[in-house]
Amino acid sequence: MTIKYTKEEALDYHIGGKIGIDVKTPVKTAKDLTLAYSPGVAEPCKEIEADPQAAYKYTNKANLVAVISDGSAVLGLGDIGAAASKPVMEGKSVLFKKFANVDAFDIEINESDPKKIVEICKAISVTFGGINLEDIKAPKCFEIEKELQEAVNIPVMHDDQHGTAIITTAGLINALEISGKKIKDIKIVVSGSGAAGIACARMYRALGVEHILMVDSKGVIHSKRENLTKEKLEFASDTDARTMADAINGADMFLGLSKPGVLTKEMIKTMAPYPIIFALANPVPEIYPEEIKEVRDDAMIGTGRSDYPNQVNNVLGFPYIFRGALDVRAKKITENMKMAAAKALAALAKEPVPAEVCEALGAKDIKFGIEYIIPNPFDKRVLGVVSTAVAKAAFDDGVARVDSFDAKEYKKSLEKR
Amino acid sequence: MTIKYTKEEALDYHIGGKIGIDVKTPVKTAKDLTLAYSPGVAEPCKEIEADPQAAYKYTNKANLVAVISDGSAVLGLGDIGAAASKPVMEGKSVLFKKFANVDAFDIEINESDPKKIVEICKAISVTFGGINLEDIKAPKCFEIEKELQEAVNIPVMHDDQHGTAIITTAGLINALEISGKKIKDIKIVVSGSGAAGIACARMYRALGVEHILMVDSKGVIHSKRENLTKEKLEFASDTDARTMADAINGADMFLGLSKPGVLTKEMIKTMAPYPIIFALANPVPEIYPEEIKEVRDDAMIGTGRSDYPNQVNNVLGFPYIFRGALDVRAKKITENMKMAAAKALAALAKEPVPAEVCEALGAKDIKFGIEYIIPNPFDKRVLGVVSTAVAKAAFDDGVARVDSFDAKEYKKSLEKR
Repeated sequence: MTIKYTKEEALDYHIGGKIGIDVKTPVKTAKDLTLAYSPGVAEPCKEIEADPQAAYKYTNKANLVAVISDGSAVLGLGDIGAAASKPVMEGKSVLFKKFANVDAFDIEINESDPKKIVEICKAISVTFGGINLEDIKAPKCFEIEKELQEAVNIPVMHDDQHGTAIITTAGLINALEISGKKIKDIKIVVSGSGAAGIACARMYRALGVEHILMVDSKGVIHSKRENLTKEKLEFASDTDARTMADAINGADMFLGLSKPGVLTKEMIKTMAPYPIIFALANPVPEIYPEEIKEVRDDAMIGTGRSDYPNQVNNVLGFPYIFRGALDVRAKKITENMKMAAAKALAALAKEPVPAEVCEALGAKDIKFGIEYIIPNPFDKRVLGVVSTAVAKAAFDDGVARVDSFDAKEYKKSLEKR
Repeated sequence: MTIKYTKEEALDYHIGGKIGIDVKTPVKTAKDLTLAYSPGVAEPCKEIEADPQAAYKYTNKANLVAVISDGSAVLGLGDIGAAASKPVMEGKSVLFKKFANVDAFDIEINESDPKKIVEICKAISVTFGGINLEDIKAPKCFEIEKELQEAVNIPVMHDDQHGTAIITTAGLINALEISGKKIKDIKIVVSGSGAAGIACARMYRALGVEHILMVDSKGVIHSKRENLTKEKLEFASDTDARTMADAINGADMFLGLSKPGVLTKEMIKTMAPYPIIFALANPVPEIYPEEIKEVRDDAMIGTGRSDYPNQVNNVLGFPYIFRGALDVRAKKITENMKMAAAKALAALAKEPVPAEVCEALGAKDIKFGIEYIIPNPFDKRVLGVVSTAVAKAAFDDGVARVDSFDAKEYKKSLEKR
C-alpha cells in the first residue's frame, strides 16, 4: 500500500536537516585534544605526505562519499537549482548510512557549466573515497561523469544513470530466465532518453541485447532524425517505426522512464509473449499494473513504487556499490563492477525470500517468479551479496588498491556488521 | 605540564579518521524513508526553491560550517598539500563540535591558484551556513578571504588570521588595564608578517594602536625596503630601526609569530615597564616564560602552549564566533563581530575563575592579573559570552537575517545547551 503523509509532516521531518557530524574519536581529556589536533595531528599528516594512500588509514576517506549535485534534474521537480536540491542530497546521505553504513556528505554546486563542475569536483575529490553524482541533467551528466572519472583516482558514479540500469538489468536477467527467451533475440523499447534511459540501453547492450528502439518526446529515435545529441545518435535505429505504437508492436520489453500515458492497454496487447514492462515514471507510472493485467496475464511488471511488486529502487544499488568499492579502495567504477552488481541482485531474487520481506510486502509466501524478479530493498542480504560482487569485480579488474581479496571472508565480515 | 604522547599513540588515535556522518532524523519505518527521501523530500525542496532562506530551516545549513584548506601553510608542517592536511581539518571539525556543537565538515582543495580556490568555495558555499578557511599561506590567504566574503552571503573567516588576532587583542585589552597605559601611546613589535601577524596588526590598529613595527626574516619592515607585498607595505614604518634589537628597545609589547630565538633576554631588558610578551611560536616559543622571568618580573606573558599561563589558543574563538554567526544566520563576519569576540573574552578573564579551570591549570586560586589576562579554553562560559557578543554585533551591524535579537535570552539558551 502507498504510504500517506501530509505536506506538514514532510516539512516537520526536515526541520534542522537530516544529517550532522559525528565525532568518532574520544575527546574527553586534554590528552585526547592533544592527539586530535595540534601537535599530535602532525603524525598522520606526515604519513600522508609521504604516502597519499595513508589517507585511507588515518582519515575518514575510506568510508566517505560525496553526494554532489547542481540540482539541474531533481526527481519529479526538474531544474530547481543547487540550494533547493539540498534536502534530496541529504536524503541520499541518509540512505547511504542506513543501508550500508557509508558516511556520505552532500555538496551542492551552484554552477551550471559542466567543465567547471568537473574542475570543482576534481579539486575537492582528495577529501573523499568516492563521488556519487546526483540529479544532474542530460546530456551534461554524461560528459561530467566521464571526464571526472578520468580525472580522479576514486570511484565516480552518476546514480541516476547507473542505479536504474543496474536494477532493471537484474530484472531483465531473471525475466529472460522465466520466459526462456535468448537475449540476442529480444526487442526492447526504451521510452525516455535522459540519463537513465541512455545508461539502461547501454547496459542492456553490454549484456547482449541487439535490438533497442529508443523513443523520446518526438517519437522514435531513428537514423534519419536530425539534431540528435551524441548519446541519442548512439541509439538511433535504422527503422520505419515512428510512434510508440509502431515501436512496441512485437516488443519483448518496455522500459518507461518517461511519463504517464505513453503506454496504453491497446499497445500492450501487441507485445510479444511474456512481455517485460518496467513502467518507472514516478509517482504515477506510464501505465498502472492493474491496467496491464486487464489485457495480459503473462506480463512481468516492475514500477518505481513500493506498493507494487518488483520495485525498481536505486537503494538496491548505490549504497552497496560504494560499500564494495570503498572497501577495496577502488580507483574507479568499472563496467564489470556495475554488471557484477546487477548479476548479484538477479541471483539473490532466486533465493528463498526472508520472512521480513514477505511481511514488509504484506504477503505470506513470496517466491521467485513473475511477481518477484527483483529483490526487495528490505532484504538485508543485499549488503553482503552486492558489495562483495562489486569489490570482487574491482579487484579482478585491477582497480582495487588492496593486495589480496577473499570474497568469502569479506562477505562474512559484512554480514557481521 | 606538557602532555606527552608517542608517535604510535597519535597514529592509532587517527585510524579510520575522526569524524563521520550522523543521521539526525528517525529512519526506522518505511514512512520515515518516504519522508526522508522521495517523494516526501519534495516538500522542503519546493519551499527552498520559493525562498532560499528556507534552507536554514529545512536543511542542516543553519548549523553547518565548511573547514576548507589547500594545505599550503599547515601549522608546524608548512606546505604539505591538500591530502596531507586532512587530519588537521578533521581535527578542526572535532573542536567545532566539541566546544560549540557546530557541525563542521572538512573539504581539502587540491588547487593552488587563489582565484580558482575562491571560485570553488563560492560554487559550493550554498551547501553551508559558514566557511572557515584554514592553513592557507600568506599572502594569498588575504585575497582569498576578501574575495570570497564579497562573493558569498554566508560568513567567511580565515581562522589563522583572525583567531590569533582576536585572542591576543583580548589579552592586550586586559594588559593595558593592568599597566594603566593608554592604547594610543603604546609601541608594539610584531615578529612575523604571515597571515596571523598581518591580521593581528590590523586588529590592534582598529583598537587604537598607533605605533607598530613589524619584523620579518629580513629585519624591520621599513618604508625604504623594496619588493614588499601589499600587506607588508601596509605596515612599513618610517623608522631607523633595522633589527629586532633596534625595534624592541622601549617597546610595550612583543607579539611573536615567528621562531625560537628571535627574542633574547638582553632585548627584553630594554622593553618598557609592564611589557606584554606573547611568544606564540609553537611548540617552542620565541623565548620561554622562565627566561623572561629571569630578567623581568613585571612582564605579562602569553604562549601558544597549554602548560603556561595565558595560552593563546584559537579554540577560544572560532567555535563561538561561528556559533553566534550561524544562530543569527549572518551574511558575513564583520570587523565589529571580531572585536566583540575579543572584548567578550577580555571581560570574561576578569570574572571569578571557575573551579574546573583552576583544577585544569593545577592551581588553587586563580585571579585576574598578569598571569591570567586571557580566559582558559576549559572555561565553559566562553560559549555564552563570545557567541552572544558575536551574534549581537552581527545583528547591530545589520548582517543578521533574524528580525529581532534578545542577547539575554540567547545567552540563556546557550547556557542550557
